[in-house]
This record gives sequence, C-alpha cells and structure tokens, in this order.
Amino acid sequence: MTEAEKLPKELTVRFRMTAAGASAQGTLPLATFVADVIQVATDHANALGVGYSRLIEDGNSWVLSRLTLELDRLPRIHEDYSLTTWIEGFNRHFSERNFELRASGVTIGYVRTVWVAINVATRRPADLSGISHLQDTISDRHCPIEPQRRIPAPSADVADVYGVTFRSSDIDFNRHVTTTRYVELAVDALPLDLYDRAATRRFDIAFRHEALWGAEAKVVTAPAGDDPLDYITSVELADGTQLCSVRHTLRAVAES
Amino acid sequence: MTEAEKLPKELTVRFRMTAAGASAQGTLPLATFVADVIQVATDHANALGVGYSRLIEDGNSWVLSRLTLELDRLPRIHEDYSLTTWIEGFNRHFSERNFELRASGVTIGYVRTVWVAINVATRRPADLSGISHLQDTISDRHCPIEPQRRIPAPSADVADVYGVTFRSSDIDFNRHVTTTRYVELAVDALPLDLYDRAATRRFDIAFRHEALWGAEAKVVTAPAGDDPLDYITSVELADGTQLCSVRHTLRAVAES
Repeated sequence: MTEAEKLPKELTVRFRMTAAGASAQGTLPLATFVADVIQVATDHANALGVGYSRLIEDGNSWVLSRLTLELDRLPRIHEDYSLTTWIEGFNRHFSERNFELRASGVTIGYVRTVWVAINVATRRPADLSGISHLQDTISDRHCPIEPQRRIPAPSADVADVYGVTFRSSDIDFNRHVTTTRYVELAVDALPLDLYDRAATRRFDIAFRHEALWGAEAKVVTAPAGDDPLDYITSVELADGTQLCSVRHTLRAVAES
Repeated sequence: MTEAEKLPKELTVRFRMTAAGASAQGTLPLATFVADVIQVATDHANALGVGYSRLIEDGNSWVLSRLTLELDRLPRIHEDYSLTTWIEGFNRHFSERNFELRASGVTIGYVRTVWVAINVATRRPADLSGISHLQDTISDRHCPIEPQRRIPAPSADVADVYGVTFRSSDIDFNRHVTTTRYVELAVDALPLDLYDRAATRRFDIAFRHEALWGAEAKVVTAPAGDDPLDYITSVELADGTQLCSVRHTLRAVAES
C-alpha cells in the first residue's frame, strides 16, 4: 500500500445541537453551520497532511474563497448532526471540497467550498504543486448541488443599507475579519420575522478582500429579482472595495 | 439509596479548541467560553431533572442573572479543555452554580454564576420551591474567586461610546438578545492591540433587562479607576434602560 492509498478520502465529524446555541427559530444558526464546515475541512486537511502546519512550511495558508450550501432544513435543538467531507477536485491553484449534512438518519443538505492557498507574507495566490499528492485523494462521491455562479451586484435603487465597524471579536488568528462574521452580516440583513416565515434554501458567499480591525463597512441588500425570498448582499468598504458578496435564497415554511 | 443520593453533584464536559474558532490572540474567545459555561450548566440541570423541560411544567425558565470569571489564562489553539460544574447554593429565588476550567492538566480558571427562574409569560421572578430537592445536590467543592460585587456606572466624562442595533443573529430561542452577544459587546469596547498586550484576568457581567430584535443600544465604556487595565462597560437603550453592566479587568502579558 502506498502512502497515498492510506490517506482517508472522507472524514465524518459528529456535532451536537444545544438549546443555548440555537437561533430564534430553534435551529442551528447559519454562521455556526459554516464554522462547523470550516472545522471539518481543517480536520480533514490535517489528516491528509496538507493542514496549516504543512502549508506554512512553504510560507502558505489555506483561505476559503467560495462557499455554497443547499438545505432541506437545518438541525434542530437536541438533534445530533454530522458532516462528511471529501475532495472533488484539486489543481495547483485551488481545491474543491464538498460536504454532506445528515441529521436523524437522513441527508438534509450539501455544501460546496473552494479553497485557495495564499502566501501569508504577500497575501497573493500560492502554487499548490508541492502538495500534488492530493490528486490521489479525490473522491468520486456525488454532490448534487449546482456550483456557485457569478453573484450580481445588488440593485442600488432598491437596496437596504446598514453600517458596521469591525471590532475585536470579529477578528481571527490571521488578523482578518472572520468568515462567520460575514455570514452573520448577510443573515442580519433580513428581519427576524422573515426567518419565522421562511428558511434558507440556498446560500452562496464569495470572499473578495480581507478586512482589518477598525474597518468601517456597509452591508447593501436588495432582492435578486421578482422572487420575494431571493436576496443579494454585498459588504463593501467606503472606498467601494467589495469584501464579500452573497446570494441568499429562502423558501416559505409552514408556521409552527 | 434515595433518589437525591443518585443525583450527580458534579458534571465535567470536555471541549476541543480549534484554530478556526480562535481569537486574534490564538486563544478561546471569551464569548465562546461563556457559551460553553451555559451549555455545561444546561447539561447538569438536565441531569438533575431541573432543566428546561421540568421548569416549563410550572411555566418557568432559567435565566442567567450574573456571571463572574477569573482566569490565569484561556485555552490555546489545539489545547483540549474541560469545565466541571457544581451547585454552591440554592433557595426559592435563585441558584448559584460554579465552574472550574482545566487545560493541559491544570486548573486555569473559575466561574461563578447566579441563575434565577422567571415565569415565561410574565417575565417576572418565579418561585423555585417546587424543585427544592436541589438542596440535596449542593456540593462543598471550593470556588476560590470572590463573588460579584456591585458594578458602578462608567464615568460619563471619560467614556467611549459606540452604537449597536440588535439584528437577527443576535436573537436566541427565547426571542431575546443572546448572553454571548453582550459578552462580545464588552470585549469589542476595547481595541485589538490592547488584547495583544493584556489578557482577561477577571470579567463580571450582570444582566438587567432583556432586549428585542431591532432595539438600538449604546455601549458605554470608561476606566474603572486609575488602573489602565480595568474597565466598566454599560449597554443601554436610548431611554436609559440598562441591559447589562460589565467590569473587565485585564493583566499585562509578555509580548509573544
């Protein structure tokens, strides 16, 4: 057996959903779900020998570039759930990693992610050919959701805007605004009573630029089209630099 | 053996500290630590038969009223940690529950919490005499940190103020602003570079009023006295209603 054949093509991690960590609707908050996805990706990368400690040998680090999720529903209070991850594709520029979300014995969602490596000093894209053994860990497991498409800008003439200043809790170990904070900013662009009537069906987020402590941004949100449950959100600095863009598509749910 | 003698006087829960969940300083964020404390309290209350499902039979629910923590340090990336909880006191009005934080085989902190029960319909204090068997679960384990004292108001003439609007991610299953969000607001009152030079030694938080989605608040912070690492923070609505007050005392740390 070669080294590559020993590498685990899949990893499953189990999670517990607690009442104290629930959203107002009694479900796993979207930002917590994305944090779980990142943790499972990190664990699998470590298991494959391509985690932080390996990449930093070349002066590089993984950065999440795009994430797309589709959900039948989110885990509920006291419901255990699991995430299974596998690599769908890998080249010298990026890695595509997918996830299946299961709860109560059934699959309730899928996630697609695209990761790039950057040089930690220059913050520029790095070459991944040094870890090309990842080619041998590509799984043929199927991910039935559409890859992310280009997210258009929100229509300025019908947009709602709110301001945010990034503060100490918003900053991660890389000294940039955390991924989960951007997910919260997009979730927060819609009012609480909308989430009582509708649940996330699909959520696309693309990360464009990194932001630092003290930066002031605006969160611009507008309907994506005629569907009243389909929204575009853009997070932008005052100088117009786009930090991330989001498309959030919900579906009506029965009142409980 | 009576029923009471079978009840576990202590509960220990183990946690894992991940890189993705770390603060800018590579430690467990204070808000995550408080979320862990609440989870362990909930688990132990359930094990003692006085959890949510028991209290709601009487129309009541637990509410965290005060929390005080003292730390030698916080858990670091990849360091497992555990929280052990026990009940120090109980009467018909409130319950006092303490916690010991351990990591790498040593105790690195303690937490004191005070919980009241409220009637979920009236939001007024409830009578806990229906669960007086909790008297038999009081532990004589020692908690060496001082109980919370009254937290004074921040001095208005030297205060820094920032505004916040509570949005969808800030709201819990009880439809009020989450405990962890208040912890973040106090953490966020101090700049990132201060946390590079100083770490939390003691953190006192008292919850005064519940806030709803859409409420606009101001976060008012001033030095507690002459110590440049000792701060008072008050979170207040525009009409002066105080939502919570915090005293945050740090200690200088060696530059890493």
